[in-house]
Amino acid sequence: MTIYYLEDLETRLQEVNDLNSANAVLSWDQSTYMPPGGAAARGRQMATLSRLAHEKFTDPEVGRLLDQLRPYEESLPYDSDDASLIRVTRREYERSTKIPAEFVAQLNEHQAESYQVWTEARPANDFKRVQPYLEKTLDLSRQLANYFPGYEHIADPLIDFADEGMKVSKVRPLFAELRAQLVPIVQAFTSQPVADDACLKQFYPESQQLDFGLEVIKALGYDFNRGRQDKTHHPFMTKFSLGDVRITTRVQERDLGDALFSTMHEAGHAMYEQGIRLELDGTPLAGGTSSGVHESQSRTWENLVGRSRDFWSFFYPKLQAAFPEQLKAVSLDTFYRAINKVAPSLIRTDADEVTYNLHVMIRFDFEIDLLEGKLAISDLPEAWQARYQSDLGVRAPDDRDGVLQDVHWYAGNIGGSFQGYTLGNLLSAQIFEAAKRDQPGISSEMREGRFALLRDWLTQNIYQHGSKFTANEVIERATGNPLSIGPYIHYLRTKYGELYKLV
Amino acid sequence: MTIYYLEDLETRLQEVNDLNSANAVLSWDQSTYMPPGGAAARGRQMATLSRLAHEKFTDPEVGRLLDQLRPYEESLPYDSDDASLIRVTRREYERSTKIPAEFVAQLNEHQAESYQVWTEARPANDFKRVQPYLEKTLDLSRQLANYFPGYEHIADPLIDFADEGMKVSKVRPLFAELRAQLVPIVQAFTSQPVADDACLKQFYPESQQLDFGLEVIKALGYDFNRGRQDKTHHPFMTKFSLGDVRITTRVQERDLGDALFSTMHEAGHAMYEQGIRLELDGTPLAGGTSSGVHESQSRTWENLVGRSRDFWSFFYPKLQAAFPEQLKAVSLDTFYRAINKVAPSLIRTDADEVTYNLHVMIRFDFEIDLLEGKLAISDLPEAWQARYQSDLGVRAPDDRDGVLQDVHWYAGNIGGSFQGYTLGNLLSAQIFEAAKRDQPGISSEMREGRFALLRDWLTQNIYQHGSKFTANEVIERATGNPLSIGPYIHYLRTKYGELYKLV
Repeated sequence: MTIYYLEDLETRLQEVNDLNSANAVLSWDQSTYMPPGGAAARGRQMATLSRLAHEKFTDPEVGRLLDQLRPYEESLPYDSDDASLIRVTRREYERSTKIPAEFVAQLNEHQAESYQVWTEARPANDFKRVQPYLEKTLDLSRQLANYFPGYEHIADPLIDFADEGMKVSKVRPLFAELRAQLVPIVQAFTSQPVADDACLKQFYPESQQLDFGLEVIKALGYDFNRGRQDKTHHPFMTKFSLGDVRITTRVQERDLGDALFSTMHEAGHAMYEQGIRLELDGTPLAGGTSSGVHESQSRTWENLVGRSRDFWSFFYPKLQAAFPEQLKAVSLDTFYRAINKVAPSLIRTDADEVTYNLHVMIRFDFEIDLLEGKLAISDLPEAWQARYQSDLGVRAPDDRDGVLQDVHWYAGNIGGSFQGYTLGNLLSAQIFEAAKRDQPGISSEMREGRFALLRDWLTQNIYQHGSKFTANEVIERATGNPLSIGPYIHYLRTKYGELYKLV
Repeated sequence: MTIYYLEDLETRLQEVNDLNSANAVLSWDQSTYMPPGGAAARGRQMATLSRLAHEKFTDPEVGRLLDQLRPYEESLPYDSDDASLIRVTRREYERSTKIPAEFVAQLNEHQAESYQVWTEARPANDFKRVQPYLEKTLDLSRQLANYFPGYEHIADPLIDFADEGMKVSKVRPLFAELRAQLVPIVQAFTSQPVADDACLKQFYPESQQLDFGLEVIKALGYDFNRGRQDKTHHPFMTKFSLGDVRITTRVQERDLGDALFSTMHEAGHAMYEQGIRLELDGTPLAGGTSSGVHESQSRTWENLVGRSRDFWSFFYPKLQAAFPEQLKAVSLDTFYRAINKVAPSLIRTDADEVTYNLHVMIRFDFEIDLLEGKLAISDLPEAWQARYQSDLGVRAPDDRDGVLQDVHWYAGNIGGSFQGYTLGNLLSAQIFEAAKRDQPGISSEMREGRFALLRDWLTQNIYQHGSKFTANEVIERATGNPLSIGPYIHYLRTKYGELYKLV
């Protein structure tokens, strides 16, 4: 009987996965190639697939099968595929069945509409236009959290969706500690000349930028037999199966760094997915385990690898060969300082490694204040400006580069949307340190343009497991320690101490 | 209550439509951009969407709603949207419910597998490899027909799927009459020098070919706001909604005609779909009405427009400007003769207008013989060669350009796959003649590179209705007559009589 139950469950999960994967294809097409006339029907098609996937996943028969499979699960080792499948499915089932289908539909519809309005309001610098949508998003976010009563803080269920096991009472002290460490580092920069990144702001033709980016991520280990890259307005990674994990990028011809680092970033996300054991394909285990762990991998390949001196000691001559006119007179050292320029800025996604987390914390704090009712949506633009002034010493000329800059609140929830970015940065350093401890040859291999030691270690310790383990379990298993800020601070101090005089 | 029933039906049909449209996106992606690693999961995802769409469409509740809506339908004019929706849905429902879901799944799976094998067997010239698949396809095609007992001929249900209202006893005499008219015309060519098409076989760079093709179909009226063109191995048209009707093409740099005429052909299919009234979107009425009528529109824009002297009197100077080196010394007359060269050939899709239908008839006759059991699959390659020798006087060097050339039998049914091509040719001339009778300015407008009179007439008389009317109804309404071969023969005799000495 057990085999029958398990097969029945797997068949149902496969069907849900097929619907969700199909939806991901529709979404990818929407961002890449869909003509404008396709928009209305596409929204409806995606809503239908979402609804069917939700209906099928929350079918009471799934719950009964999970109950019937409990003795089997308990007879197996915790880390076996079957036990993990049953455990993770049960967790998601319990979560999904708490949210009424009508609410899911209402939320999806509102988010799609709100996103649409934001795409028009941002270029028009029109916060007033999105304000009522954002107010409804806040209401719906609270309502969503309230389907999970018994929380310590109303943001906790929303944070848990993205970063299971995390909650306000854990994130807050972590962020406070990080902040205490970061602020003096940031202040140290304000008393010194800013690095000159003029070499990056020359004219770099799009097709050559794309070619170089592809060469780099091929070397990192992104598998083009199981993926591809297209252009979109905002870069992203998406997966249709473990055999088809795609990334997108965008190019600015007057900014060499934009496409290059976003390509490595998305390739990092994609390599995590491509590294999952193929046996898990089509199940709820075939995906990265949390927002933070996922981001740790994109940041590893973008920053710890892609902005390192080791990496560029190999790739810089190739970059010079690709862009001889622009770079022949620019030394590796100048280039390295340019791609690691630290300076307070307005836009999170353009921020350097040091100031980046201050951007994230501002958003995290606002999410808490909004959910608690301490801050009204109508006061958000001014609060945003005040906080940027006090934390980063900069003031956006208008809301476009202020409160309107990130898509998250306009297309998702308020709550749980941002902490993963900083958790990812912390984890990237902690994981990279563990990898180098186990495989001391990683750095020298990087200087030869090879990444197999690092990639294999990450695959072995993180990627292959998909979401069999929670973020906390993965971190402990991979590094031997729970999440901590030490390695990240050490990484920043070492790297930037060499570049700048730090206090 | 009636309104409630109708809304319920429409909601269900919308959901089926969303699933089918999503599946079309997956299929388009599979042909355009999917990396090889994505193939296995994609086949499964598409099978899941097909199965769900079939389940939902054949839900007994749909049948009950159709029954409950009968009095309402009978109270409405035949050509009203609601009556047509109920009538057409009932016809499709009755057809779909006769075929068991397990059979649909088995057939889809076999067809996908057979297609895969064919893609490898054709380049390897290995008919033996596909033979068992084709034998199973023949069995399944017979089984499919037998879900519709009471037919005159076993091919009739299969023909009716594609060209409703057609059957062997109607197609055979029509084809016999056409053949009797065609053979002397074809024979007249064999006694004269073949047109010189060397001017088309020069080197034409891909990107300029694509640019010129886009300019042409934009002028014809293909709406890029509701469509786009991508490259695939085999050109096709696909629709995700009336707001997103895409085409694909392929380019041969040593054959100017290939991309250009296939682009106009697919744009013709697409303009039919784009011309359907938007109110019908998402319903079973939002599609062309039959294989033959659809093909009539692709052939109209490819041949009656795209290979006409009127068309090229305007576009040839533009083509010369796009390819000055290749064409500056080639006169319009030489070019016009080259694109209308008549010569017996091996490949259906490369055949000229005059010999094309002989290719189709060979396939139609083989489908009948195979289904009747008069011809065994194992004897097909030799029968193919013998028939090409007797009908066209040519013999393929191997099966690649013989029995393996067309995808239809390898990815679909044996039966009903080919008659639509010839019906389409016949209809294209009959419809074009009617259009010019009503709008005598069509030819002179074409000489100015404009097509509004023709397009508007086609939209008014054919496109806008989608599949509200059957093929026979559409033809009678648009032309005032039932399908006949007269206009097509007249068209060929007039056009080619001017180019060649005909008997």
